[in-house]
Parts: sequence; C-alpha cells; structure tokens
Amino acid sequence: MTVSLMASYRCPEDSGAFDAHYRDVHIPLVLAIPGLQSLTVNRVTKHLMGDDRPYMIVVMAFADREAFDAAMASDENKAAGRDVMSFAKGLVSLMVSESETVHP
Amino acid sequence: MTVSLMASYRCPEDSGAFDAHYRDVHIPLVLAIPGLQSLTVNRVTKHLMGDDRPYMIVVMAFADREAFDAAMASDENKAAGRDVMSFAKGLVSLMVSESETVHP
Repeated sequence: MTVSLMASYRCPEDSGAFDAHYRDVHIPLVLAIPGLQSLTVNRVTKHLMGDDRPYMIVVMAFADREAFDAAMASDENKAAGRDVMSFAKGLVSLMVSESETVHP
Repeated sequence: MTVSLMASYRCPEDSGAFDAHYRDVHIPLVLAIPGLQSLTVNRVTKHLMGDDRPYMIVVMAFADREAFDAAMASDENKAAGRDVMSFAKGLVSLMVSESETVHP
C-alpha cells in the first residue's frame, strides 16, 4: 500500500492553456518532489454517469507515510503547491489517500 | 497510455457495510472482467482543500481502447455494473479516462 497525494481538477475555461501549463511547468515541479514513486495522470475522456465530473484526476504516490510526510514538508512540494494555486485555484481539490493496486 | 474505467464514490452512510461489500463482492466481480490489467483503489484518508470530497476513487486499467471496448461489452462487466447499482446508486460517478504514469 502506498500513500498518495491526489488532485482532482474540474474543467478549466481554457483547457488548452491549462494542459500546456500542467505539462510544461507543473509536471516537472512534481517530479522534483523527493521520494515521489510515480505520478499518474488520468484525463477524463467521457463521462458515463453520476454527479461528479472531474476533468483530470492525478495520483502522486509515495512508498509509505514517512516518505509522504517528508515529501509534503519539502521545499519542492511547496513550490509545486504554489504553482497549483497559480493555474488551478478554484478548480483543484486535494486529498491524501491510501492506494492499493491489485492485478487479476 | 492505458484506457481506464474510473469510479468516484461519495461517502456512504454506512461505510463499514459499504467497505465490506466492496471488498468481498465487488472486487472479485471486477477482477473477472476480461482484459483488466490492474485495479487501483485509492481510499481518501484526509481532505486537504477544494470542493470535491470523494470517499474513494478507483481506476480499472486496460491496455488500450480495443481491450477497453471488449471489456465493457463483456458479461462480466455487466455483472459488475449491476452490482455497483445495488450498493452505490447515487454515490458513484463513472468515467472513461486515458491514464499515463511517469516515474521520476
């Protein structure tokens, strides 16, 4: 089980500008966070049912709680956090999750 | 890039019963869907900011669009879908996503 920072983004007004900033500026900042194991970007291409309509859900995974806490306290995470507020304020929800992957 | 079925669940009234059904009944049904590569369950343990407060976000990954489409048309997927409606109607939102994982 990994401990993850999850970000759920609502649909931006200018998705082209949002996507470019996310790819060119934000992803490099996230990849610099110490202890990050993986960054998974899930871009919603079709809504099937239900009231929640996220534009994109991102999972940033760390090995365990200790690695997660150290990462959150890092300057690199603070820089990524400041960047989020510059392009996604009002669109983003942030959560901590415990994540488990099962293979059939 | 994989093609995923994503499910976002809102907080159930009886989280104990929900979690037990999800673990004991729903996960085995999902694992039976042909072509499934992985099932990742992200359980939210702490809300940090923003308006969206999911209880759990699940990503069911398939190798590509063809595998995804075949899986969605399968009897096993229909059984999993019927089960979702039996325990999570009104709580679940379902989406298709394109998912990409980057490692630092």
